Amino acid sequence: MSKNPKISVVERYIKALCDHDLETIDLLFADDATVEDPVGSDPLRGKEAILGFYKVGFSSGLSARLEGSVRLAANHAIFPFVVELNPGNGEMRIEAIDQFTFNDDNKIIAMRAFWGPENTRTP
Amino acid sequence: MSKNPKISVVERYIKALCDHDLETIDLLFADDATVEDPVGSDPLRGKEAILGFYKVGFSSGLSARLEGSVRLAANHAIFPFVVELNPGNGEMRIEAIDQFTFNDDNKIIAMRAFWGPENTRTP
Repeated sequence: MSKNPKISVVERYIKALCDHDLETIDLLFADDATVEDPVGSDPLRGKEAILGFYKVGFSSGLSARLEGSVRLAANHAIFPFVVELNPGNGEMRIEAIDQFTFNDDNKIIAMRAFWGPENTRTP
Repeated sequence: MSKNPKISVVERYIKALCDHDLETIDLLFADDATVEDPVGSDPLRGKEAILGFYKVGFSSGLSARLEGSVRLAANHAIFPFVVELNPGNGEMRIEAIDQFTFNDDNKIIAMRAFWGPENTRTP
């Protein structure tokens, strides 16, 4: 059985976060996508704002790993994962759950990241 | 530090699922709550429909456990967990992520359960 395409997108996304691979991020999002990270903040709209957001994350040495299976329902993929920032220089560890909503081409049209102060650790 | 009340609701919810405790489920939801389980199905509306839904689950020997930390953002709590049904009689295991949205009294006004066929196992 070939892998569900929405699960493939999540796996490529996590790998792109670790590789600081902006080209893949660009490929995975639709041009008119929104990013709300964390949920409750003003969403970013459009590819330029979104790529700028990831560029800042990459400059702080971001890495990420899945922390459980990707759940699929309707046009969503949602997954628990861990993000680490600033390795060796005031590390921060965030436990998040990201929700991707897909268009018919399996591009991400909306990303919402659920996390708050309770999910943040500075070791 | 006292525990965040939204995290307490999630922990009481998981315990109530394991104890088949309909009274606690009744306490945790607002009267006009909705339940969309799985996401993509027609939501149940109101306490009577919701309690009926959990009663059916309890009659199939439902148990549940958290599978990671509860993430908090804005008025939401969202958490990865595992549900088991029909123990010893054609078991089914579902890996889900539930999203609770709260009203100002920290009652659940909306529950959305993200899972699909890819998240279901029959051992």
